[in-house]
Order: sequence, then structure tokens, then C-alpha cells
Amino acid sequence: MAAPCVRKAKRLLRLIHPLSGSTVRFAGGAAATAESSAPLDRIFSGIQPTGIPHLGNYLGALESWVNLQDRHSSVLYSIMDLHSITVPQDPTALRHSILDMTASLLACGIDPSRTVLFQQSHVPGHATLSWILGCRTSMPRLRHLPQWKMKSRQRNEGYVGLYTYPVLQAADILLYRSTHVPVGEDQVQHLKLARDAARIFNHHYGPFFPEPQALLSPTSKVKSLRDPAVKMSKSDPQRLATVLLTDSPEDVALKFRKAVTDFASEVTFDPEARPGVSNLVAIHAAVLGGTVEQAVAQARGLDTAQYKQVVADAVIERLRPVRDEILRLRREPGYLRSVLDEGSRRARELSAPVLRRVYQLVGFS
Amino acid sequence: MAAPCVRKAKRLLRLIHPLSGSTVRFAGGAAATAESSAPLDRIFSGIQPTGIPHLGNYLGALESWVNLQDRHSSVLYSIMDLHSITVPQDPTALRHSILDMTASLLACGIDPSRTVLFQQSHVPGHATLSWILGCRTSMPRLRHLPQWKMKSRQRNEGYVGLYTYPVLQAADILLYRSTHVPVGEDQVQHLKLARDAARIFNHHYGPFFPEPQALLSPTSKVKSLRDPAVKMSKSDPQRLATVLLTDSPEDVALKFRKAVTDFASEVTFDPEARPGVSNLVAIHAAVLGGTVEQAVAQARGLDTAQYKQVVADAVIERLRPVRDEILRLRREPGYLRSVLDEGSRRARELSAPVLRRVYQLVGFS
Repeated sequence: MAAPCVRKAKRLLRLIHPLSGSTVRFAGGAAATAESSAPLDRIFSGIQPTGIPHLGNYLGALESWVNLQDRHSSVLYSIMDLHSITVPQDPTALRHSILDMTASLLACGIDPSRTVLFQQSHVPGHATLSWILGCRTSMPRLRHLPQWKMKSRQRNEGYVGLYTYPVLQAADILLYRSTHVPVGEDQVQHLKLARDAARIFNHHYGPFFPEPQALLSPTSKVKSLRDPAVKMSKSDPQRLATVLLTDSPEDVALKFRKAVTDFASEVTFDPEARPGVSNLVAIHAAVLGGTVEQAVAQARGLDTAQYKQVVADAVIERLRPVRDEILRLRREPGYLRSVLDEGSRRARELSAPVLRRVYQLVGFS
Repeated sequence: MAAPCVRKAKRLLRLIHPLSGSTVRFAGGAAATAESSAPLDRIFSGIQPTGIPHLGNYLGALESWVNLQDRHSSVLYSIMDLHSITVPQDPTALRHSILDMTASLLACGIDPSRTVLFQQSHVPGHATLSWILGCRTSMPRLRHLPQWKMKSRQRNEGYVGLYTYPVLQAADILLYRSTHVPVGEDQVQHLKLARDAARIFNHHYGPFFPEPQALLSPTSKVKSLRDPAVKMSKSDPQRLATVLLTDSPEDVALKFRKAVTDFASEVTFDPEARPGVSNLVAIHAAVLGGTVEQAVAQARGLDTAQYKQVVADAVIERLRPVRDEILRLRREPGYLRSVLDEGSRRARELSAPVLRRVYQLVGFS
């Protein structure tokens, strides 16, 4: 597995914005050497506490998160519980989901001795900076963001938290003066808001926040196994659509066996014409750490039914150590809590001087 | 001054909601004895750091604040700097205004050994609880509140902070499980939002927040000396419209001499037909600590020009110790800072267990 990892890391590195080296561009036009005031390089990302992640989370984001730990000196990953309550949550389920997500991140390879893994609500600066940035973000600016347009229609105009959540997201990133944010393509517009927020703040109060750059994940989105037109999702009502990292080998095999494909028996990669089988090829390639061409080559002579078994076996093998470790860690809630508490303490430490400086600039101190 | 003070305090007491005694009504229908979980009686109010308050602030709110210290065991007053940035602020001016407001509150008689006098931005729970409450406040609910309707029209749809600021106001109050809030009539709708927020939270998570009650100020609004149709205001562009607590006796006399009245020379109280002279009578009555009838009786035989001098003298006398103390305290910024820091520390102490419990109820802890 070492060789594919290195290949993947190299692909990731190519995606880093060329300005991310020795200088950090400041929003608002000013430029400063990294030494003068900004961290040279700081990665920030977050994930909502949805419990156990699915295969799409793993291949689309978490694998990249693990790899980024080797390439950057300062990495923060947050369990975004403040964001999670923009839709209704059962408190007991949420509490469990926070620990399940922590166990999953650790099992995937997030190393709390190198990475600050923390719980968003336990760092008070997020909500405070969000308030400050919101005082310089216009209402119409938020109305056209995809999250609101998508979710508010279903919820009768929605709640204030759902509307303003991109502002909190901007605060999440800027609170650590982060320079790079690994995001999915659907989050690029929200990152743009964070860049705008940095630019507007710097314009009003003087250059302070670096303008964070996107690190686009190299893996394409994993689709639902029951409907390859939509993303694989935790909330999919069809149980067979989504592979969870804790699924038993039998469940994984079943879900791939029942995966929707088409009536052609040969395996090819053509996402437009053959989305179902192409989703299997993409998953296979990602799990192998190779290209889709390499995956198709492995399918030579197999019909789709046989190929489903091959892909299922590869996924089962790949997930086996992750699954075992999640199941082990789940039995140690005290340890998981202590990891989050220590990470949150370090996040508070890192954010405190930033917030202190923001207070001076705004006039609160 | 002792007798009028007692009269005023008695009038205030009559305004306290009858349910505020030994039981506290919980939003959502449940009732609990105060002993079980809610503070028996907690007063919360706040004022934006506009610098030196004017006569309208003093007679309309600050005097009541001072009196409330004698009648309630737990009183918190906050300098609302997070709210102040919903409109643009110069950072240096804001920093000075925070200390000027602190000096003014102390000079008016706020006693930091009995009252928690603190700076809102220095207590992180305000913004955090605001976020949590905002996740259960619908967008349309805010659209019709007076503050937004008034200010957003002037500002091209306005900023997120201006829109969501009633939610922060609800959090300000609920963060201390406050039972009573001295408010002006124009704030009653915003207090209603805080009561709704308490009710909605309790409905979702179980009874926790008392439903805060309004304590309406017994003094009617002081009007502009240049246009008795509008409230006296710090931001009035006409310098002679507004009496500041630090105005020199000469300035106060000048502003009353130039006060807009009408062409009748007799002094009567008739706010509809004679708003200008009635404003003078109301100010006079408030400064005397008496009724408007008593003020009119003192004006017998005087024309309005002579009466203006009488009112000016009464105001000058009443403000003299306050003014002297503000000017003295202004020269001690280190002391003012230490008062705010100590108050903010105590506010953090009082709010911490409330936020801790909210986190448990929501599922963050």
C-alpha cells in the first residue's frame, strides 16, 4: 500500500496553490512574507459528526486528510458539531455520533500526536469570530449559496443557523489563519465566502487573515450503489445504497452484489453512458490507489456480476483494518473523549492569540 | 434625593410581573419552584458602548438600573460591544467608548461590588448560545422586527449581524437564566423573541430556561430638544438636540434655552398638542423625582423662557456629581479596565454552568 500512497500524495501536492510556498497572499491585495505574521502553511478542515463515515467520505476526503499529515507541519481537523445542529438532532444520538466519528478518524489514520483533532463547540472562538464576520457579510451574499437553496426549500424558509452557516464556516477556517483547506467541489463556493470574509476584514482593519486556498480532493465523488446519479450519502433511505466503514464483509459483499449497473456484461469506464458500472470502476481504482484504466484492465474477461465480487473483495480488504480499529475504539469512549479534549485544548491555544488580535483590531480590547 | 428614590423604587416594584416571586414560570408550560433549578431572581440588561450617555439614557434607563441594585440579589449589566459592530465602528473610537460608558455607569451609581458589570465580548458564551438558539429560530421570524425594518432600509438590505442581532440579544439574557429584563418600550418585541427562544429550547430539550419578564421603565422617553417628535439620541446631527452627561453647565443651559417649544407662554403638560414644552415638563418631573403635576405646579407664573432656565438649573444640579465623577474616572483607564475585567470574569463564572448544561442538553457534551 506504500507505493499508491506516495503516488496519491504527489497528486495532492500538485493541487496545492503555487502561492502556498514561502509567501502567503493576503486578501485585500497586500502580500507579506510568511515569517512576518502568517503561519507558513496551515491546513484546516472539518467533518460533521454523522457517526460512522461511509466509503465516499473515506475515499473522497479522509484518505487525503491522512496523507496531508505527512506533508504539512500544522494540520487541524474539526468535528463540526455546531454545524450539525443546523438540522434537528437527537441529543443522545449526537453525543454518540461525535465519539463514533472520532473513532473513525483515528482508525483511518488521523494521528492526534501530529494533528489537532478537536470538537468545534469546545473552542469558543468559532461562534465569536462568526459573529464578527457576520457583521460585515451582506444578507444577499448568503441567499444564493447552494446549501441554503437546497435545504431551505424543504424546510419552509429554514432556520437562521442554516442561512448563516457559511459565515461560521468562514470563521472556522480563519480562526486559525489557515492557508489551505481540503474541500470537495461542492464546498468551493463556501470557501470563496471565507476568502471574501478575509478580504473584507483585511480591508476594514488592516491585513491580518491569509486568503485560504482550496486543496481539491483528487478522488471523484463516490456514487450511491442504488442510484449512480446521486452521491453516496449517510442519509440515503435505501440501506443498500451506502457502504459504512463498519459494515461487515457479508454486508459489503451484499451491497456490491445488489449494486445497480446495466445490461451490458463487459466492464468499461464511461460515467455518462454507464454510470453504475463506472462508479464500481472508480471505487475499485480508488481502493487500489491506481487509475481507472488499471482497474478496467483487472476486469478483463469478467462480466459485471463477477467484477462486483472483485470490487467488493478489494473494498473489504481495504476496510478490514479500519473496521477492526473502529470497533475496538468504540469500546473506549473515555479514551476518545480524552483525545477530543486534548485536541480542543490545543485548538483553543492556537486560536486564542488570533482572536486576541482580532479583538484589538476591531476595538474590543 | 432619598425620598424620591424610594418612591421611584416602589413604582418600579409594582411593574415586576406577579409571577416573579417564589416561582419562576418556565417557557413551554412547565412550572418549577425556584429552588429546584432556576435562580429566584436575576436581572439582566445591557447598553451599547456609545461613549457618554445622554440625559434620555440616564432618566430612561440608567437611574432604574441603579435602583434595581437595591431590590434584587443578582444583577448583571453588560456593555454590548458585540452588538455595537452591527453598524460600522472606528476601532479606536469604540475602545474609548467602552471605557467612557464604563465610567458613566459607575458615575451614575452602578456598584461593581454588588452588580456584575461586564463587557459582552469578553464572555464567550454569548456568541455560542446565540448560534445554538439561531438553529431553532426561523428566518421569517426576524424579518418583521423593528430594528431590521428600520436600519436595513437605509443600508441596502444590511448585514447578517444586523438581521440576527435579536437572536444574540436572546442569548445575552438566557445565558444567565435571567428572570427579569429592564427594557424600554421599543425593546418589548425583542424581549418577546427571547421568551420565544426560551420556550422553543425548552420544548426541544426539556425545561431549562425561565421565560424572562419585562420590567418597563417608569420614565417616559426623553425627546430631542430640537424636535420633540423624536427621541433624544446620541446620533442626532443637531448638536443642541441632545444633553450629554458630561456637558458643561453652560452647554446644558444653552441647549435648554434653545429648546424648541411653541408660542404659548404658559407652561402646561399636553404631549399631543404641545410636545416641546411637555418634554421640558417630563424632564423636570423626572429630575425632581416627582410627577408632571408637581413640575407644572413649580412653573406657575413663569413663561416658557423662564421655565427653561428652571429646568436647566434642575438638570445641571442633578447631573453635577455624575459629571464630576465621569470626568474623574476618565482619567483612570486602568481602573476602568480592571472593573470590566473583574466583571467579565464573574460573568464567565455565572454563565459557564448554564452553557455546560446547554451542551449536555443539546448533545455537545
